[in-house]
Amino acid sequence: MTDLDKHQRMANAIRFLAIDAVEKANSGHPGLPMGAADIATVLFTEFLKFDPTSPNWADRDRFVLSAGHGSMLLYSLLYLLGYEDFSLDEIKNFRQLGARTAGHPEYGHGAGIETTTGPLGQGLGNAVGMAIAERLQSTRFGEDLVDHYTYVLAGDGCLMEGISQEALSLAGHLKLNKLIVIWDDNGISIDGKVEITDSTDQQARFAASGWNTLSVDGHDPVAISAAIRQAQASDRPTLIAAKTTIGFGAPTKAGTAKVHGSPLGADEISGTRAALNWPHAPFEVPSDILDAWRIAGLRSAQAHKDWQKRFAEADAETRAEFERRNRGDLPAGFTQAVLDYKKKLADEQPTMATRKASEAVLGVINEVVPETIGGSADLTGSNNTKTPQTAPVTPDDFSGRYIHYGIREHGMAAAMNGMALHGGLIPYSGGFLIFSDYCRPSIRLAALMGQRVIHVMTHDSIGLGEDGPTHQPVEHFAALRAIPNLTFFRPADITETLECWQLSLENRDGPSVLALTRQNLPSLRKTYEENNLCAKGAYVLIDSDEDAAVTIFATGSEVEIAVNAQKDLSTAGIAVRVVSVPSYELFEAQSDDYKAAVIGNSPVKIAVEAGIRMGWDRFIGADGIFVGMTGFGASAPYKELYEHFGITADAVVAAAKAKLSV
Amino acid sequence: MTDLDKHQRMANAIRFLAIDAVEKANSGHPGLPMGAADIATVLFTEFLKFDPTSPNWADRDRFVLSAGHGSMLLYSLLYLLGYEDFSLDEIKNFRQLGARTAGHPEYGHGAGIETTTGPLGQGLGNAVGMAIAERLQSTRFGEDLVDHYTYVLAGDGCLMEGISQEALSLAGHLKLNKLIVIWDDNGISIDGKVEITDSTDQQARFAASGWNTLSVDGHDPVAISAAIRQAQASDRPTLIAAKTTIGFGAPTKAGTAKVHGSPLGADEISGTRAALNWPHAPFEVPSDILDAWRIAGLRSAQAHKDWQKRFAEADAETRAEFERRNRGDLPAGFTQAVLDYKKKLADEQPTMATRKASEAVLGVINEVVPETIGGSADLTGSNNTKTPQTAPVTPDDFSGRYIHYGIREHGMAAAMNGMALHGGLIPYSGGFLIFSDYCRPSIRLAALMGQRVIHVMTHDSIGLGEDGPTHQPVEHFAALRAIPNLTFFRPADITETLECWQLSLENRDGPSVLALTRQNLPSLRKTYEENNLCAKGAYVLIDSDEDAAVTIFATGSEVEIAVNAQKDLSTAGIAVRVVSVPSYELFEAQSDDYKAAVIGNSPVKIAVEAGIRMGWDRFIGADGIFVGMTGFGASAPYKELYEHFGITADAVVAAAKAKLSV
Repeated sequence: MTDLDKHQRMANAIRFLAIDAVEKANSGHPGLPMGAADIATVLFTEFLKFDPTSPNWADRDRFVLSAGHGSMLLYSLLYLLGYEDFSLDEIKNFRQLGARTAGHPEYGHGAGIETTTGPLGQGLGNAVGMAIAERLQSTRFGEDLVDHYTYVLAGDGCLMEGISQEALSLAGHLKLNKLIVIWDDNGISIDGKVEITDSTDQQARFAASGWNTLSVDGHDPVAISAAIRQAQASDRPTLIAAKTTIGFGAPTKAGTAKVHGSPLGADEISGTRAALNWPHAPFEVPSDILDAWRIAGLRSAQAHKDWQKRFAEADAETRAEFERRNRGDLPAGFTQAVLDYKKKLADEQPTMATRKASEAVLGVINEVVPETIGGSADLTGSNNTKTPQTAPVTPDDFSGRYIHYGIREHGMAAAMNGMALHGGLIPYSGGFLIFSDYCRPSIRLAALMGQRVIHVMTHDSIGLGEDGPTHQPVEHFAALRAIPNLTFFRPADITETLECWQLSLENRDGPSVLALTRQNLPSLRKTYEENNLCAKGAYVLIDSDEDAAVTIFATGSEVEIAVNAQKDLSTAGIAVRVVSVPSYELFEAQSDDYKAAVIGNSPVKIAVEAGIRMGWDRFIGADGIFVGMTGFGASAPYKELYEHFGITADAVVAAAKAKLSV
Repeated sequence: MTDLDKHQRMANAIRFLAIDAVEKANSGHPGLPMGAADIATVLFTEFLKFDPTSPNWADRDRFVLSAGHGSMLLYSLLYLLGYEDFSLDEIKNFRQLGARTAGHPEYGHGAGIETTTGPLGQGLGNAVGMAIAERLQSTRFGEDLVDHYTYVLAGDGCLMEGISQEALSLAGHLKLNKLIVIWDDNGISIDGKVEITDSTDQQARFAASGWNTLSVDGHDPVAISAAIRQAQASDRPTLIAAKTTIGFGAPTKAGTAKVHGSPLGADEISGTRAALNWPHAPFEVPSDILDAWRIAGLRSAQAHKDWQKRFAEADAETRAEFERRNRGDLPAGFTQAVLDYKKKLADEQPTMATRKASEAVLGVINEVVPETIGGSADLTGSNNTKTPQTAPVTPDDFSGRYIHYGIREHGMAAAMNGMALHGGLIPYSGGFLIFSDYCRPSIRLAALMGQRVIHVMTHDSIGLGEDGPTHQPVEHFAALRAIPNLTFFRPADITETLECWQLSLENRDGPSVLALTRQNLPSLRKTYEENNLCAKGAYVLIDSDEDAAVTIFATGSEVEIAVNAQKDLSTAGIAVRVVSVPSYELFEAQSDDYKAAVIGNSPVKIAVEAGIRMGWDRFIGADGIFVGMTGFGASAPYKELYEHFGITADAVVAAAKAKLSV
């Protein structure tokens, strides 16, 4: 058996596992695994540094299948290489309930899947974050401990999505030379040939943002190997355009859209078996080929041992810190720093915008949590995400802790997901809340993957004033609360901002959004409380001695309005409670007793929030009073807008009195 | 006064109106108007075809200020050129409540604003749609009636956003040679120099997608003029990289981020007045310069007259059809065609997926409504948006009615907005509902602008099955219902699909989303009803003779489940009503009486929807029963998923019985 024979048979093992699994599931995408099997075989048998017996080895190379619909490529590889989580039974259970082998690769379904992909372009964005993380960690811990590549297999769809431009231009700017993107250039998308909708010279596009670019026959293992070797030596990120035939080997469907996303069917499969000389039964991999793959799985065992040796030789403090950060534990001093600062706030009672409050809180956090990596999508001075501890990261210096992400919200959020997945870092962003829409697909994936990324989103309502309705979130509170496993915070003052930051950092299993104001807010928490009151999502900020006739629920900047209304109503002899609701999600997670106690039994329930009503019926009932927005905002000084839209203490008082008929 | 002197004084008129308006408002962005004033002066005085006395002339050139924060550039131009809606008082009221001169240009605030911009990159995407619309209309009505350019002024931010890539690659592919983008290449963004975050060679990037590219000194009127002339003659779209100084003329702040988004301040303003030799009072434009601008405003009057003559000479049918389409009226035969088809459906009672139902309905609509322009983001066979009437549009042939948008959801939605704004066309898209997240910013802008664009979004729940949670909408119903002025439809069968399509087309003042299933559904509407029952948003599908113990509310594919549960409960002697809720928004617009009657007084209220609960408390109360999702979906055959997540008739029956204690 020549080397080429062996290569082809190993690649065919991938192809037929994919073909057979898709056929059995009667669902899935055989075209990409068949087309990219040669690339994957070269990459995984000659280059990728990984250890199936220790799949989470911190210094492994990362492989991202950005074209996630080709999931069977990845599952086949993981099975063939001997990853414990991916047995042949899992392959046979492709796309079945409870299987690790979901339709698209799902992070957390099994070790070896580095990220969840499927929504196109996201994997490319994640990989940029992983490559940034590698440079950051390597700068911090040295190349002895962190020195790995990040490889991406991307399809035409990944490159057509706009996020690809944000990702590649950031990577090119930062000179992420250990990022290698292999483009499965098969010229086919679902509607037919790519040329019916796109005429882009992708290599020229990548080169325009400072990438090294190569092109190669994606079915020639020697050429692929040479290209990857060149890419590894580049001082810039590399795009390898690998010309392939989608559904390689299928006698009538290869090279067409027909093989993209449907089972081949029995006839085409038997034709493919004949064409590729693969006379084996479904799911059968001849033992010599399985052995060859398993041996490939051992290829980096020595490298792993060497790394372990180097790690053992590092000083104890470095080892402990490296492991702590990779585990995701916060440093020992974190909680005390938070409490000390909270005490200070209780004394000082500062008035400030919550975006400024966040900056002050971050000054405390960044001092004790060295693994935070801040940034902003070109709104640093508005988002207040930069603190004295966070020097900018530059192409030549990754010792900093702040990334100028540029006007690339989507690329930023996807890169943050990649940084969190890489491990060792806690990324937080800066942006305007309105532009959560620009990065929503990546926020959703952070939630689906349970990743700790923290989005600071300022200018959170009509309170931003003159910029007008294009910049004023109205539906965004509801729209973000709607995403499962995302915690959306809207703190009311600096103490709540501190508490919400604490909760965001302590939540290792999901992303958080902090919605913060442009406009000033007073301190509303008057006394020091060691407990994090925001942890329960909603709490009674102002109670009433007697049975309250009115309970006012509010969030963020509208809690001040609720408090003022409470004062006025109290003066008029009406007993009022005020409930601050920094997070719906955390409140929903409380006991029924707690929830009932907070919601209470006041005959009049009022919610005040400068957004739409959606979701508030949970608190106030369908017949409750909502003081908020019913449509888009407007351009004017913010105090005039609050008056114009009737979100004022006077409006709350009037509504309460009308309902009480007093 | 030399030509250059005159040019500079005319440009300075723009600069100082912007400076003074921002200063008076104490808010806004002077940097761009100051930097781009020379470009704008050349464009509007030498090239742009428009008539301030007839600002909606169908064949005017379109000008899109994609960098919408520079709104004072546009307002200054409109005032100087004599647009009635933009008086000097409006300029002085910049960013004040009720003014036409909002912080960012708002479509509808006054004639002369072609689109709402501010969220970066959107204007570029709109302009691509306008340029497509021009080609489509020109092909249909001839160059005598439609023959105009579309100009864009874009900033660094527009080009950094991912949507720019989707827009430019589509434009390059379609060879939109009458699209001319002028890039205000000032090298500055909010965080400082662009070079701190981006190193892209933008001309090379555009060239990679088939654009003609030019570069020019953005302060040299002769060079700008020559470049635009070259661009007009190109057989491809053109990018003109115009090197400018942001805040041109400001003595200490020009060329820095300081002049981007804040008033200059009194000292800097007086320095700028001195530097640019503009000794006039705030808001004062010397009469010779105002005259020169007003004369420029008359430049195309003859062209307009010539056009009117050509239009008058066209045959009556062409004139009537051109005007009908531009007014946005539907053709006379539309309603009858809908009713005829509805009758047929009542007879035939077909079972089919609502995506297939939509295809069938579109076959009827596209036959009688020639101005629809369909398309899909590379999911034609899945979205079922192509009908026999819609041949594809190609770079060389715009007689077709179907656009292969490619894997560019965001670019697609922005282009559709531009097509709708252009007039004469009704664009509809195809995509997966999950990817509404990818184009959400453009959907929001369609809602804000009140544009009739229709998004067909299929694969609308776990009912898509094996593709898994990355592709299964869960929070998307709520998230889309949250957007003001967007009508979100989820029809339950083919008759509802027909009715929802009718409503989408009849709604001239806002966008619609049709959420459609991948899986088959039976016909639930058993009898022919001339009235469009979906028009009220919710209606009683199955009533009960006696007082109903249970009312079940459901949408889309879950109405079948509700109907089955009703049968089972009826068999058990429990009286049940079923309410179909195709649209929350339309329901909310009904009278209180109607709403109360539909919601009814059943002691047990149940909502069934394969999404999250958010919003349903409006119907069922906080203590109502919700049968739906609480988190992300999973990968498996869809019937198993419905069982797994407990969204079944049995589950509804059990919940009802438990609540009734029977």
